[in-house]
Amino acid sequence: MNSRTVEPQFLEPWRERIEAALLSFLDTELTGVPVELAAPLRYAVLSPGKRIRPLLLMAAHRAAGGSSDRVVDLACSVELVHAYSLVHDDLPCMDDDVLRRGRPTVHVKYGVGPAVMVGAALMPLAVQAILRSAGSIGLDDLTTRRLIASLTAASGATGMVGGQLLDLRAEGRSVGLVELESIHTGKTARLISASVAMGGIAAGADEAEVARLERFGLQLGLAFQAIDDILDLRGDTQKLGKESGRDTALRKATYPGLFGMEEAERISRRLASAAASELAELDESAELRDLAWYIINRSH
Amino acid sequence: MNSRTVEPQFLEPWRERIEAALLSFLDTELTGVPVELAAPLRYAVLSPGKRIRPLLLMAAHRAAGGSSDRVVDLACSVELVHAYSLVHDDLPCMDDDVLRRGRPTVHVKYGVGPAVMVGAALMPLAVQAILRSAGSIGLDDLTTRRLIASLTAASGATGMVGGQLLDLRAEGRSVGLVELESIHTGKTARLISASVAMGGIAAGADEAEVARLERFGLQLGLAFQAIDDILDLRGDTQKLGKESGRDTALRKATYPGLFGMEEAERISRRLASAAASELAELDESAELRDLAWYIINRSH
Repeated sequence: MNSRTVEPQFLEPWRERIEAALLSFLDTELTGVPVELAAPLRYAVLSPGKRIRPLLLMAAHRAAGGSSDRVVDLACSVELVHAYSLVHDDLPCMDDDVLRRGRPTVHVKYGVGPAVMVGAALMPLAVQAILRSAGSIGLDDLTTRRLIASLTAASGATGMVGGQLLDLRAEGRSVGLVELESIHTGKTARLISASVAMGGIAAGADEAEVARLERFGLQLGLAFQAIDDILDLRGDTQKLGKESGRDTALRKATYPGLFGMEEAERISRRLASAAASELAELDESAELRDLAWYIINRSH
Repeated sequence: MNSRTVEPQFLEPWRERIEAALLSFLDTELTGVPVELAAPLRYAVLSPGKRIRPLLLMAAHRAAGGSSDRVVDLACSVELVHAYSLVHDDLPCMDDDVLRRGRPTVHVKYGVGPAVMVGAALMPLAVQAILRSAGSIGLDDLTTRRLIASLTAASGATGMVGGQLLDLRAEGRSVGLVELESIHTGKTARLISASVAMGGIAAGADEAEVARLERFGLQLGLAFQAIDDILDLRGDTQKLGKESGRDTALRKATYPGLFGMEEAERISRRLASAAASELAELDESAELRDLAWYIINRSH
């Protein structure tokens, strides 16, 4: 793994479009919402982030032959779900984090009650982002239904929320490789996989192609989480934008925590290589390939 | 208002169908979900409740000419959203309640972290209930999209979650009639209104008819909340299944708290009469009328 990887050139302009789309979506959807809820919602969503999931959706959309520039509206939906997972993850009853993306966490700044409500408001907003994007992209009702099914399945009990709870339950005890992978699949890989799949669905990909995108997304998500855990352990707080070493403090179930750094790096390389194999099965797409390599090789 | 109203005969068999449908839905959807999440989810959803919202959806469906027996599958969706609002409402960072429907609240029984996760898992499950019911009822993709739009708009920042936060913010200070009605609209009436509207949408009602159903549901929801606040103040814990007088203890914004019991009962009668006027605008339906009267006149 490279110690540092140059960011692909297209990422920054794509990110700018994502920021603009998120801002425009919130401006529209939060009209009339009390400021006590609108302010922490904006804070949670618009805090600086890598925007990996919406970038993946957009790149997968192009890889599957899609060409609409407005796919960025759809891409907002997966970032909204991700933002909500971060708000809930940081709560005192979960990881009890005070710093996120370099700023005080939502509950530190606005209180625990509002933070719970922000999390709860983001899921319906994410579904509404899909509904709204259907108009701007020009998606039919069947495609819209498939997108909503993909996002909700990845977000709920069988996906992200289930994984978060498993993660919480695993704190402070020793878990095996299989259980750890199941935690990572739920809390991280399912939403990354859905992001990739949704890009394909919006481009009109058939079931078989969507299934290939999903498999690639799952592997990429697992590699992403393994690298994240390694970075948490050896990273510094400023680079990460969150407290480093928190996993150790909480005795979280992670690869380096369970198997040591050297073995964790071996596992992370294996997962990255599995993701690369799945990628090779997909149609050629410069953006998706560059983005995947960037994610797999990132060191910060 | 009568001191006690006889329950319409159809309610009990309809409730039994709702219980069976909720059970069957959870059995299917929670397959493979870790028991740490599945157990509190079941506990939250299957605890004894009045099932007012699914009953209203089913009655409105019939009023709008619908005849599918499987509309009960769709009706589960609004109960899932309601259940999640109760779990979050009861959290220590919100109302800090220990008793709900006669049993310990979810966070008391399972912990605060799992309770937050249960709430978060219920919203995607509610959307999945709509998607699944579309198959059993035989709804087209456009109807499914309208149902999802109705439910998510009523559940999120512009609806229930927004109302919950306003409610929290209003504790301990004096609010006016307009602000109080806006809190009640968000936290209670929007979801009741969506339940009624969704019954109509599933029956193929046109926009104008759905708008009439929504207006009726909003008035009914406001009347329901006014009566609930009165019952909280004068009720006893056993009848309510939750601690009575909690509103006073928390200095909640309620009609009796702000204007006294006599004026609150006057307001409640006025809201009930407004709901009855809206009902008169709808097509004749014995079930919807009987259910509305029952809700408006209930004393426990």
